[in-house]
Amino acid sequence: MSLKIEHAHLVLPYQVLQDAWLISREGKITAYGCGVSPQQTFSTVIDAKGQYLTPGFVDLHVHGGAGADFRDGEEAAFVRAMQAHLAGGTTTMLATVSSTTLEGTLESLRIYEAMRQREAQLPPLPRLAGVHLEGPYFSQKERGAQDETIIRLPDAAEYERILEQAPCLRRWSIACELPGALELGERLHKRGIMASVGHSDATTAQVYEAFGRGFHSVTHLYSGCSVLHRNGPHREGGVVEAAFLIDEMDVEVIADGVHLPPDFLRLIYKIKGPEHIALITDSIRAGAADVPEGTVVYDDKEGRRPICIKGGVAVMPDGKNFAGSIATTSRLVRTMVQRAGVELTAAVRMAALTPARMLGMDAEIGSIAVGKRADLLLLDSGLQVQGVIRDGKQVIDNRLN
Amino acid sequence: MSLKIEHAHLVLPYQVLQDAWLISREGKITAYGCGVSPQQTFSTVIDAKGQYLTPGFVDLHVHGGAGADFRDGEEAAFVRAMQAHLAGGTTTMLATVSSTTLEGTLESLRIYEAMRQREAQLPPLPRLAGVHLEGPYFSQKERGAQDETIIRLPDAAEYERILEQAPCLRRWSIACELPGALELGERLHKRGIMASVGHSDATTAQVYEAFGRGFHSVTHLYSGCSVLHRNGPHREGGVVEAAFLIDEMDVEVIADGVHLPPDFLRLIYKIKGPEHIALITDSIRAGAADVPEGTVVYDDKEGRRPICIKGGVAVMPDGKNFAGSIATTSRLVRTMVQRAGVELTAAVRMAALTPARMLGMDAEIGSIAVGKRADLLLLDSGLQVQGVIRDGKQVIDNRLN
Repeated sequence: MSLKIEHAHLVLPYQVLQDAWLISREGKITAYGCGVSPQQTFSTVIDAKGQYLTPGFVDLHVHGGAGADFRDGEEAAFVRAMQAHLAGGTTTMLATVSSTTLEGTLESLRIYEAMRQREAQLPPLPRLAGVHLEGPYFSQKERGAQDETIIRLPDAAEYERILEQAPCLRRWSIACELPGALELGERLHKRGIMASVGHSDATTAQVYEAFGRGFHSVTHLYSGCSVLHRNGPHREGGVVEAAFLIDEMDVEVIADGVHLPPDFLRLIYKIKGPEHIALITDSIRAGAADVPEGTVVYDDKEGRRPICIKGGVAVMPDGKNFAGSIATTSRLVRTMVQRAGVELTAAVRMAALTPARMLGMDAEIGSIAVGKRADLLLLDSGLQVQGVIRDGKQVIDNRLN
Repeated sequence: MSLKIEHAHLVLPYQVLQDAWLISREGKITAYGCGVSPQQTFSTVIDAKGQYLTPGFVDLHVHGGAGADFRDGEEAAFVRAMQAHLAGGTTTMLATVSSTTLEGTLESLRIYEAMRQREAQLPPLPRLAGVHLEGPYFSQKERGAQDETIIRLPDAAEYERILEQAPCLRRWSIACELPGALELGERLHKRGIMASVGHSDATTAQVYEAFGRGFHSVTHLYSGCSVLHRNGPHREGGVVEAAFLIDEMDVEVIADGVHLPPDFLRLIYKIKGPEHIALITDSIRAGAADVPEGTVVYDDKEGRRPICIKGGVAVMPDGKNFAGSIATTSRLVRTMVQRAGVELTAAVRMAALTPARMLGMDAEIGSIAVGKRADLLLLDSGLQVQGVIRDGKQVIDNRLN
């Protein structure tokens, strides 16, 4: 199976090749260049007509979409949400499971594992890179929209059961200041699972300590993070300041333009640089779909914990906290370019290469490079997704021919 | 008059010359180098015995010291405070006058002008670079220790009188969001007077606007500055975020190690870089002297507004706000090097070259360079002041010979 795309603006990590072509064979990129494209025979030829060709995007933190949540307890929910995000530009995903009971967590992990076994029989989906557990070992103070009756302290018996049964686990967000959290961080680090500081009230010094114990990233920076506060006249820092001070610390950023206004996106970009920022959707079940303003959805399938969609974001009923986004990954890139003023190549790196590197998959995906998988997007000049290619095969085509 | 200093570690802007010498003639640096020093005859020869030789420090923001405040209404107060800070390493100073009545402000300016006229008859003092008015056009919300009954809105009739009578005015801290503040900023900018955002509750966008209208620096960053806050689930930025986002914005930093803990000093250093940071003492009348813990001093000479000295800093009676520092400039450099981990050359640039550049005096002072004034300090290995040289003449000598 071979594919040629021609007349595209190729978005490489550090430059955009104008009027360029790209060839993939057997699902891998084999060549690209400017000017007249090779004239052999290909199974498929796509005329990009001057659209952008970017690597597919990698979302480390997404809970669902198109009405489905990864805690719904059925494979169909995974498939539905993943298909919706594929159409939105996500070609690799960590299915993210919010704080729930041990049974609920194990069930989600079991379904995911089973789905991976029979991936070939499923419709086209984003690459199944594994599962991200967001909780339940979180700070009550910084819980945000996490269920306060569910979040709890690290429990070795519990997490050992999860580790035992879940080879698919790739990332775990934990409040590093909780008793037992550092031991869990070390345990994860040794297993090659990313430990991430999340929903945490840690001091800056506690995050320094956690960094040395295996916590190498921060989950949705600013959201659920302690930050500068006054203690009488004294100023004290938190997770945010630590994330800025530790050069090597990677950060997730919900770049829907609502969780953080454009100035904060620019500030994080300036301080951390694109090599340490992973754009994430943190999308909930209402995401990656057309959702009318004022829609109410529920956090779980039993219809508890209502969440309202207002102003392009999910908000808790008391109006005090966001409850995740409804964004797709391509919206994140649009926000960074069109509202935060970041150049396209850097925005695409934050949506693809950096999260791929965090996953340890950057030899395989995350940029347009010879030898990498041909997971690609066609974006129009407004950076809307017009086509999605997975492993060299076009699986979404929104263009009017 | 000629001076040779030998066997010194010369702290240049980007390197330390080991076992070096420096020569000044007629108050200016004429040569420096490593190895054997020139063997002509000099009026004075100082053997530095391996101590550091740095440029004298430049303090843009200092209210007094040794018991005196620049609002005390007498020349003797200026002289007393300035002598104390000279001994602490300050060889150039903007005498800073806190918010007071128009009459009080004009009186301080008159005394300063008169003092400048007869500078040659005064004892050795830091260079009289001019006056910094800190207020009275400040935000009530961010007033900190400023007198709430005194701070007020910009008043053109008032500030025109001040401008008319004060050629010595060089810097004015103003809350840029107040009605009329931008007009004042433009007015100052045209006159070559630095407008600085201070004690301000401005939004980030208001500071962008102010930057375009002549406000090119921020007064004691973090102190009296709006910062990230929540508005329901939304995050909004303030003066601090604007200072970080505007590359060209200079910031004052009270580097006594108390107003901002070392992590914040490192964070500001990382984001702004030494070329945009001016270390300041913000010292009050209790500063630059040995002050026992628990000492109570008063903001004005009438004995109103008590301020307590606790933990090496001045604190308001309610314990909620700092009321300025008791630091000398050399303490600022010690804090940056010994507690914030900044290298010596950069710490010295922030104490000398950057504030000199902000004053427009960097052709004359701020670093060890041929042609600049020989304002120099001898510092021991703990960065304590052992000698002060003003215009090529040693005016302080703390060394046991």
